[in-house]
Amino acid sequence: MRIVWSMGDPHGIGPEIILKSFLTFGGSTHSFLVAGSYAVLDYYRKALDLPVKLKLVASAEEMTPVRAGILAVLSIAEPDDIRPGTISSEAGLLAMKSIAAAAQLCHSGVCDGLVTAPIHKEAVALAGYTETGHTSFLGRILGVPSPTMMFFDPLSELRVALATIHEPIEKVPGLIRTMNLQAFLSNLAESLKSDFDLSAPRIAVLGLNPHASDGGVMGNEEQEIIRPCIERLSSHLRVEGPFPADGFFGAGMYRHYDIVVAMYHDQGLLPFKVLAFDTGVNITLGLPIVRTSPDHGTGFDIAGKGKASPRSFRESALVAITIAQNRIKKTVHKL
Amino acid sequence: MRIVWSMGDPHGIGPEIILKSFLTFGGSTHSFLVAGSYAVLDYYRKALDLPVKLKLVASAEEMTPVRAGILAVLSIAEPDDIRPGTISSEAGLLAMKSIAAAAQLCHSGVCDGLVTAPIHKEAVALAGYTETGHTSFLGRILGVPSPTMMFFDPLSELRVALATIHEPIEKVPGLIRTMNLQAFLSNLAESLKSDFDLSAPRIAVLGLNPHASDGGVMGNEEQEIIRPCIERLSSHLRVEGPFPADGFFGAGMYRHYDIVVAMYHDQGLLPFKVLAFDTGVNITLGLPIVRTSPDHGTGFDIAGKGKASPRSFRESALVAITIAQNRIKKTVHKL
Repeated sequence: MRIVWSMGDPHGIGPEIILKSFLTFGGSTHSFLVAGSYAVLDYYRKALDLPVKLKLVASAEEMTPVRAGILAVLSIAEPDDIRPGTISSEAGLLAMKSIAAAAQLCHSGVCDGLVTAPIHKEAVALAGYTETGHTSFLGRILGVPSPTMMFFDPLSELRVALATIHEPIEKVPGLIRTMNLQAFLSNLAESLKSDFDLSAPRIAVLGLNPHASDGGVMGNEEQEIIRPCIERLSSHLRVEGPFPADGFFGAGMYRHYDIVVAMYHDQGLLPFKVLAFDTGVNITLGLPIVRTSPDHGTGFDIAGKGKASPRSFRESALVAITIAQNRIKKTVHKL
Repeated sequence: MRIVWSMGDPHGIGPEIILKSFLTFGGSTHSFLVAGSYAVLDYYRKALDLPVKLKLVASAEEMTPVRAGILAVLSIAEPDDIRPGTISSEAGLLAMKSIAAAAQLCHSGVCDGLVTAPIHKEAVALAGYTETGHTSFLGRILGVPSPTMMFFDPLSELRVALATIHEPIEKVPGLIRTMNLQAFLSNLAESLKSDFDLSAPRIAVLGLNPHASDGGVMGNEEQEIIRPCIERLSSHLRVEGPFPADGFFGAGMYRHYDIVVAMYHDQGLLPFKVLAFDTGVNITLGLPIVRTSPDHGTGFDIAGKGKASPRSFRESALVAITIAQNRIKKTVHKL
């Protein structure tokens, strides 16, 4: 597989975890390409004494398997200066342009999957972008209105998908009422089939309110929206719920399902981050391209210090390879 | 210490975990009394073959230390029939009357602490009560408008307090805006000092919105309410935040604080239940009496089958004893 890595914010830990991850792939036959800046990667390579050979390439076609020992870099822009740990619009712009270029390489079929290193929300805003993250940005440039944010821990096989993503808590109940939850769950099932090779994925849906509203005592989105939706779908999908979120995770019920659907960000990410430690992978479902990323941020506080763990980034690359292979398998089956 | 146990719903696992817990206390010099029904305890004692000697007492003064080998029972009411796993108004009424009697025994100084076995919300509603749980019911009968719900895991020493409790998600942002968060945090600090013997408790406050709103990008309760409140308090209390909830727990930051304040039910209970397994204890702060309970429900699905674990109930009794001892120590110091 040919995987492109978008470099992320040059002042964060992105370049470092890219270089460290590359070193862990040893004699792999897969190929990796970085979309970003040669000077930035070279800076961290020297500063952190990481024995990676870099090669500036003119096009993605020049990428070579890891076992050749050279990491190909496609230069999207070269910044004037490199200041680890600082917010800058130039850095934000480079990060976003790298994502756009990398996504295009996947969309045109030159690369098989995209793994994104972290971007800094404030730097991105300074650079003039309105998106708060990769998921919405990729949705816009690839013409998908609402991609699904999903998290996967390869160690425990826990999967969590978010019905709403970066929304103020105040807006969540209204969004659950107005979104097409049925289409969301159907699309999720399709994505699990194609991307994870699950023929009949078991989906658990959490309630929105405490105790899933305890029969309507605390809120009514369960009775009015979530339960009827699950009942309509259960004739042809293995979908169950709505479950009280705390008891569901506390009792380990997530082990009996292929994926857990949380109604909002913290409801999914709180248990996920506690259970997944540093092996969590963020996956965007519903895009025409394969996209994964580590589930951590830019780590400005430790940028340039050599302390960043490449664990989650490495797992993200492995998951991207698996998904890309599964999609090809499905396409071949259909032929 | 003299601890009173309210029996909980007679059709749930309450009587069973009371009997099993009693057996684990062996030669203890503490005394336990059940407020509930003699017939119910006797039924489960026989059905589950638990070697507990019961004694019907006319008043709480007759309770004896555990090492005497007899569990004293104060009969609040005796139900017509006992049907494990079924919802009934008679059962709900008995459960609530037992709590009221037990609370009164603590309030009058006859007992030193109350441990409540689980009640069933629907049974309680059928019996004509409007409260959705112990916390609000005890608040009403003891004249405390807003007691604080707190969870404690004696194993990991994780403590979590909830700023809002059994509220629909829709109402949470408004409540955070209108509640007196400053008084809530001040009272919490006082309770931690008196009940847990912490001279200067370290308090972490979570944000309401995802990523604690990322500087106002997703919601503004952090900027407008939570952060200013923390700043006002930080001159005389060790209180920090607002922290992004998922990263806070994911990175294990809770280990550096004596308590974590969650803005809503699932934000606190999701990580708590994942981390505490079956040793979690629910504590009501701010009441004139000591009150703890296990952090699980009535378990109607396993009631009467001998499968219920007394672990959390036993821990609740131990925590009640510790808090009662700490309160006495503080009172003595003040004299």
